[in-house]
Amino acid sequence: MIVVHNDVQHDCYCFSDFYMRIFYSLLMSSQVVGSTSNPQVSGEGLYFCDGQRKVDYVLVFHQRRHGSIRSPASTSVSQDRLSILGAAGESESTEPADHEMHLIRQEFEANLIEAGLEIERDRELKAHGPSFTRLHAPWPVLCREAEFLKIKVPTKTVRSQCITVGCNISLWRKLNQPFQPKVSHQDHGRTKFLSHYTHKLTHSFLNTHCHAFISVEMTHCCLCLKVIITLIAKGVYDAAFPIHDVSVIFESPMRHQLVLHEEWAKYSAFYKYQPIDLVRKYFGEKIGLYFAWLGVYTQLLIPASIVGIIVFGYGVATVDTNIPSLEMCDERLNFTMCPLCDGACDFWHLSTACGTARASHLFDNPATVFFAIFMSLWAVLFLEHWKRRQISLSFSWDLTGIEEDEVNPELSKHSGTLTNVQTSTHKTWQKNTSEKLSIFLQTICVRVGKTVLSSEKKLTWKDRLPGYFINVSSILFMFGLTFSAVFGVIIYRITVSALMAMSPDPETKSNVRVTVTATAVIINLVVILILDEIYGAVALWLTELEIPKTETNFEERLILKAFLLKFMNAYAPIFYVAFFKGRFAGRPGNYVYVFNDYRMEECAPGGCLIELCIQLSIIMLGKQLIQNNIFEIGIPKLKKLVRALKEKESAQTEKEEERPPQQWNLDYALAPFEGLTPEYMEMIIQFGFVSLFVASFPLAPLFALLNNVIEIRLDAKKFVTELRRPVAVRAKDIGIWYNILSGMGKFSVIINAFVISFTSDFIPRLVYQYMYSQTGTMHGFIDHTLSYFNVSNFKPGTAPHNSEHGDITVCRYKDYREPPWSADAYHFSKQYWCVLAARLAFVILFQNLVMFLSLVVAWVIPDIPKTIVEQLKREKKLLVDVFLQEEKDKFQLIQSLFAKDANLQPSSHMLHVEKQ
Amino acid sequence: MIVVHNDVQHDCYCFSDFYMRIFYSLLMSSQVVGSTSNPQVSGEGLYFCDGQRKVDYVLVFHQRRHGSIRSPASTSVSQDRLSILGAAGESESTEPADHEMHLIRQEFEANLIEAGLEIERDRELKAHGPSFTRLHAPWPVLCREAEFLKIKVPTKTVRSQCITVGCNISLWRKLNQPFQPKVSHQDHGRTKFLSHYTHKLTHSFLNTHCHAFISVEMTHCCLCLKVIITLIAKGVYDAAFPIHDVSVIFESPMRHQLVLHEEWAKYSAFYKYQPIDLVRKYFGEKIGLYFAWLGVYTQLLIPASIVGIIVFGYGVATVDTNIPSLEMCDERLNFTMCPLCDGACDFWHLSTACGTARASHLFDNPATVFFAIFMSLWAVLFLEHWKRRQISLSFSWDLTGIEEDEVNPELSKHSGTLTNVQTSTHKTWQKNTSEKLSIFLQTICVRVGKTVLSSEKKLTWKDRLPGYFINVSSILFMFGLTFSAVFGVIIYRITVSALMAMSPDPETKSNVRVTVTATAVIINLVVILILDEIYGAVALWLTELEIPKTETNFEERLILKAFLLKFMNAYAPIFYVAFFKGRFAGRPGNYVYVFNDYRMEECAPGGCLIELCIQLSIIMLGKQLIQNNIFEIGIPKLKKLVRALKEKESAQTEKEEERPPQQWNLDYALAPFEGLTPEYMEMIIQFGFVSLFVASFPLAPLFALLNNVIEIRLDAKKFVTELRRPVAVRAKDIGIWYNILSGMGKFSVIINAFVISFTSDFIPRLVYQYMYSQTGTMHGFIDHTLSYFNVSNFKPGTAPHNSEHGDITVCRYKDYREPPWSADAYHFSKQYWCVLAARLAFVILFQNLVMFLSLVVAWVIPDIPKTIVEQLKREKKLLVDVFLQEEKDKFQLIQSLFAKDANLQPSSHMLHVEKQ
Repeated sequence: MIVVHNDVQHDCYCFSDFYMRIFYSLLMSSQVVGSTSNPQVSGEGLYFCDGQRKVDYVLVFHQRRHGSIRSPASTSVSQDRLSILGAAGESESTEPADHEMHLIRQEFEANLIEAGLEIERDRELKAHGPSFTRLHAPWPVLCREAEFLKIKVPTKTVRSQCITVGCNISLWRKLNQPFQPKVSHQDHGRTKFLSHYTHKLTHSFLNTHCHAFISVEMTHCCLCLKVIITLIAKGVYDAAFPIHDVSVIFESPMRHQLVLHEEWAKYSAFYKYQPIDLVRKYFGEKIGLYFAWLGVYTQLLIPASIVGIIVFGYGVATVDTNIPSLEMCDERLNFTMCPLCDGACDFWHLSTACGTARASHLFDNPATVFFAIFMSLWAVLFLEHWKRRQISLSFSWDLTGIEEDEVNPELSKHSGTLTNVQTSTHKTWQKNTSEKLSIFLQTICVRVGKTVLSSEKKLTWKDRLPGYFINVSSILFMFGLTFSAVFGVIIYRITVSALMAMSPDPETKSNVRVTVTATAVIINLVVILILDEIYGAVALWLTELEIPKTETNFEERLILKAFLLKFMNAYAPIFYVAFFKGRFAGRPGNYVYVFNDYRMEECAPGGCLIELCIQLSIIMLGKQLIQNNIFEIGIPKLKKLVRALKEKESAQTEKEEERPPQQWNLDYALAPFEGLTPEYMEMIIQFGFVSLFVASFPLAPLFALLNNVIEIRLDAKKFVTELRRPVAVRAKDIGIWYNILSGMGKFSVIINAFVISFTSDFIPRLVYQYMYSQTGTMHGFIDHTLSYFNVSNFKPGTAPHNSEHGDITVCRYKDYREPPWSADAYHFSKQYWCVLAARLAFVILFQNLVMFLSLVVAWVIPDIPKTIVEQLKREKKLLVDVFLQEEKDKFQLIQSLFAKDANLQPSSHMLHVEKQ
Repeated sequence: MIVVHNDVQHDCYCFSDFYMRIFYSLLMSSQVVGSTSNPQVSGEGLYFCDGQRKVDYVLVFHQRRHGSIRSPASTSVSQDRLSILGAAGESESTEPADHEMHLIRQEFEANLIEAGLEIERDRELKAHGPSFTRLHAPWPVLCREAEFLKIKVPTKTVRSQCITVGCNISLWRKLNQPFQPKVSHQDHGRTKFLSHYTHKLTHSFLNTHCHAFISVEMTHCCLCLKVIITLIAKGVYDAAFPIHDVSVIFESPMRHQLVLHEEWAKYSAFYKYQPIDLVRKYFGEKIGLYFAWLGVYTQLLIPASIVGIIVFGYGVATVDTNIPSLEMCDERLNFTMCPLCDGACDFWHLSTACGTARASHLFDNPATVFFAIFMSLWAVLFLEHWKRRQISLSFSWDLTGIEEDEVNPELSKHSGTLTNVQTSTHKTWQKNTSEKLSIFLQTICVRVGKTVLSSEKKLTWKDRLPGYFINVSSILFMFGLTFSAVFGVIIYRITVSALMAMSPDPETKSNVRVTVTATAVIINLVVILILDEIYGAVALWLTELEIPKTETNFEERLILKAFLLKFMNAYAPIFYVAFFKGRFAGRPGNYVYVFNDYRMEECAPGGCLIELCIQLSIIMLGKQLIQNNIFEIGIPKLKKLVRALKEKESAQTEKEEERPPQQWNLDYALAPFEGLTPEYMEMIIQFGFVSLFVASFPLAPLFALLNNVIEIRLDAKKFVTELRRPVAVRAKDIGIWYNILSGMGKFSVIINAFVISFTSDFIPRLVYQYMYSQTGTMHGFIDHTLSYFNVSNFKPGTAPHNSEHGDITVCRYKDYREPPWSADAYHFSKQYWCVLAARLAFVILFQNLVMFLSLVVAWVIPDIPKTIVEQLKREKKLLVDVFLQEEKDKFQLIQSLFAKDANLQPSSHMLHVEKQ
């Protein structure tokens, strides 16, 4: 069966040592069906009872504790070819539903056997508890499916040139050495197979080492994902997963098992590069790409953090020489400010707000403007860098050339639009199986219910309309919810500060602002965390209502919805503080009231930026800490504990399980893998904190970096030890996440422009210095920003009841308005319009400058690294050579055969060779 | 030699009736070398003397009139295989250079023969005048080159589904019928070959009809473009071109020859679609894409023109109800304006400017804002539409899958970096030829000179630095030139108007503005036209200095440079009028002077927009009319005339030419094809007029449409009748032009935002209406925009010398400044800042809104039409089926042979078939 090409030398990458060329037709012939793959390592718990056939996939169903009856004979249709080792002697429940499910299971498994898979059931007769059906995909099935999936197979080894820049400079390599994970196949990055997926029947194939990796993917395909999902949804099965088997990725038995644990899923390895190739080999491309992306993001956060620290350092260094904050702290200047609340509050001196003014300067200084520009370009750079990395990876993982629809053909069948192309191609090889599965599925629908699979028929817009309607209205409702939550916190802040201001205790009074701000932000944070969970569920529910056509489509819509909701949720309070707080407060004598009683809140005397900064840092840090600790570590641990307790309980009552647990038992005890969406979502929201409002908080990249260093290892640990092994899914990019990232990058330019020009005092300061200052310095800036108010203009009852400052006739407030003695008193002054114009001009300038620079950066960095382009060319050429040689050989063979057998007439569809 | 697959049915597209499958090795074998393609039509002047072999390509050199000597025998190296029909008896000049050139020619032609081409020289011995060397590429050479170029070849016919939307709706078809060109193969758009370029040695091939088309391309490749270019540059040859042969594109002899002339290159066909498929078949993909692009652009100009006319109509309809212009014309309001020049000019009444105010309203009304948004979206829509069309075309022309570097492999050899990949691949087939050509080229370099080909060695940055330096400085110099030209015109305008104002003749005085504006714009136009030609030459020279690596690279750099210079040139005066004119004029009593004498010019009382409009329309129309008429029709005609006269003269002195001129003689008399760059450039500059300043001139799309309808037919005529037939070049897109278009689209958003907010009076009017107007209407707007000036504040000597308005103390001027009685008189008033803020806010709003809408439009329209996606899938599947079937057949054949010849041992590199 195995055909070896001796003349092609090669090395091992994923598919090691040697490869086999087999003609598909031979594989297809009945002679080889039933043959087994050659086992080399007799594993513990990883094989069928015969110790030969590897367990590729496990189906689990849970027996319920009822009386058991034998299965009726009539259901054992088409089981004649069944190769069940553990004889099918399961007990069955009397419940009609359970009985029905048993029938479906039997039918389904019969179908699987027909499709060529081999099945082993549990030997014991269990009255209840999980029952495992173990599947093994034999060689021919794998080949057939690989053919169908157009998996690229190695045909010849190419010693690839250095892909990463500078890796051939020995000094660089030496410096980089300590950061490299100690993986025995580390040098694999430098060798590469010349691979090609081919439409031809000839096949190069993989040895056992690779086999196991591929087999998981293949088996899963055979199982027909759609059917499995339906069956699990209907409760026919409890779970379906491939089993953990770290051995598959190593050749040398010495370091077996634990390299991924040692070099990757360990906090002490935090400073190292990730062994991405191993990760991809074990978990598949989709998860590999996630970790690669996370790695690139984390790596690029390092320079951003350093620049952020420098910018913050500049703020710290200049705080003592900054004239505006010095003026604010100067008691001699003695600005008497208007009271902060009606009646209860007294006039106050600006110098008492010295603290916030100094704090303000830390974040609100000219360096911040530079940092905002820097971070906008950084975001572009990050995306460009990732694009290159992605292409490098897809090159070294042989994903170039696969098209989106080829990646997971069977996924597109998910909700029933089993396309013609797919079916007909499938038919070429497994007409019967496919048809049977299709019919089978329909039967299930009829039997088990029809909600999920009602989409089998073509939906018109009328069918979809209610779904869309509910969608739009729900999303609007959720937006409303978010906004009302934000508004609620505002009300809380207003009322509490009003109440505290009225309290007679001076201690309370002095701490009003700190207390209120801190508690309000914490409430915000809690609300965000709660709504986040709710919104995740709502997005899922809404997307299901829409009944999207394909799995990819489903995922995209879900992600978009979830992103929209979670983004709103996380950023609404921040947007409020940045752009709305204090802008609707009115002016002394004409304040704006909510509920007729409470004055709208104003910003702190140091400006709104410091509040924005507090808000941002607390929400960002809080979200990260709590989500990391509680949601990602705590809750899974808790769930595990609960499951373990349950198991224990049931074990106590049964006491029949004696032998050591098999791998599938262990894996079943783990939590199921629930997709990468939450992982990505967390990071994208974080990316928002780093990019959107970075002008107000230059330390954000640093905190993000610290979080991510831990996050990588945390996720790695989770994937390796706490989740069932996810099915390897092929993907050539990170999909819609890239678009979201790029959209956020663009959005961040505008947001930062507005933060700098409207939230910070950067522009007023500039305008003062160059238009109004007599000396050209900042002296007198504070005086310039404060308008005058005639105390006699207070509305009745709003003036301070018992003022300590007896003889005050005029107080000051922060705004650009005409003084009381002007013709149009309290209207906006010329300065106001002048500053506004400057602010708007700055927005235009900043936005267009940064957009232009981004375009330049994106244009300068080529999307595909030069080395890759060259290598692709070389590879293509080699491939052509190989094929040409092959064709030539074959042609020569035919010719020589013709020559030997001169009388033979070629059949009608063959070649007429006319020689002149 | 020809192998026919009977079981695959197909139709004719370009390659008609039947196709042939031939094994490459058979082709390569010496048996078939020298065979001729089967001729069907014995043409007149299109064939070698034997009437069999078609002339694919013509090389022309010009004998100079000197004494002639025989060529030395030593040069006839390797001419033993020469198949020259007209024996090589040319006369040669005694000049050493001429002699040298003769040697080079001989050597070159020997090389060509070695590469497999066949050559015919002129039969007559001419002492001077053009000598023609005609080339014919025989079948095997074509096959070899097709193989090398990876040209897709038809393998099976697919009846393609409708590609354009709605073409299967019969009503639509019927309505569309009159616009379809009457081409016999019109239905070809609906059938399509299943084509694939294959790496395999087997080949499907084309019959004679297609042959001729392909052969031109192929022959050209054989000739090795680089060598030809060098030889022409060195004067060894005068010209090299394929000959016109309209017959190749038709099957039916009836309508022969003239379909392209009748249905395409004719003004009376202006309302019809272009027969793009025919154009592509005759001229190749690159020119086909140009005309397709021009067609799409013109088509999309229709809706833009209609909307433009409506917007203009709105202006016309509302001009009598528009309050600001009514107020300006109202003599009762009696605004006394400050004089327009120092001393000589008198005060004047605003109502005298009534005309411009009314004209202004035609273009400066709220509908313009809508139109600007519309046109920005239109630009996006146009680009998206073109993207789709391009993909449709590249699908139906089988360009999908070709990569940039594969399109014209030999082009990359242009300046000597004959890449390893190319050479080595080439070597597989024609090692000797390639090497010889390479050596040959080096010899030429040594012999003829070394400037062009000094780039054979790797250039370091040191070598390139001077080039770059000259580049940058020249471009800066050109920019300076443009700006000084603009400035010169400004000076002209200022001085002339000052002089005319001083003239005693009242008639002159009253016409100042009209005369000055008109003459200035015409000067501008002339300068633009002259500099345009200069800049084209400069860009070429500069790009040659840079010595770019590849032909593509060369073209891109040239285009970018030429675009930059011509763009600056065409738009600098317009930019000046739009954004700078009148903004540096100062105010009464404090005017800005240039050269201490002349006041900077102000805008007309109706606003700058009307001047912008005049400037734009005259430059646009003038440029189009003059360039179309003079440069595209006049000059070529003139050149032709001159050439004809010259020919006649020489013919008179010789009188030896008796027989009717052959096709190659006729073609030689035509102008050489000089690339598509000027054609594209003209259109791109026009696109700028249509998109960049469209807010000021809504009729621009209409004029562009009228121009383009003519332009298409003009270009068609030129290509068909007035130029030598260009070499068919493959291209899958319009290259860098797309980027330029998309960049202009983005730029136009910002420009339009600024035009609306700063050049037009839209924002001041809005601000007045909603902030200052007492009644909420526009009444009083004119009064509001005019500031007061106290006549006593005139600087000495600048007040009107002899005013007719004797008792004036205060005059008005258009600006927002404080009145003389205010504390800070003549400073900008609060209104000024308020309006400025509003303008800037509008820019931000407009820009972000339009950018967002553009993103949405680009996102909603999928890049690849759905039908194409489906068809590609189907095609891929069919292709796989075909290949699978083929492989299977071959495998079965081998098996059957094995079975018959049981004793035969497979050779070591062949297949071991192990049966279990």
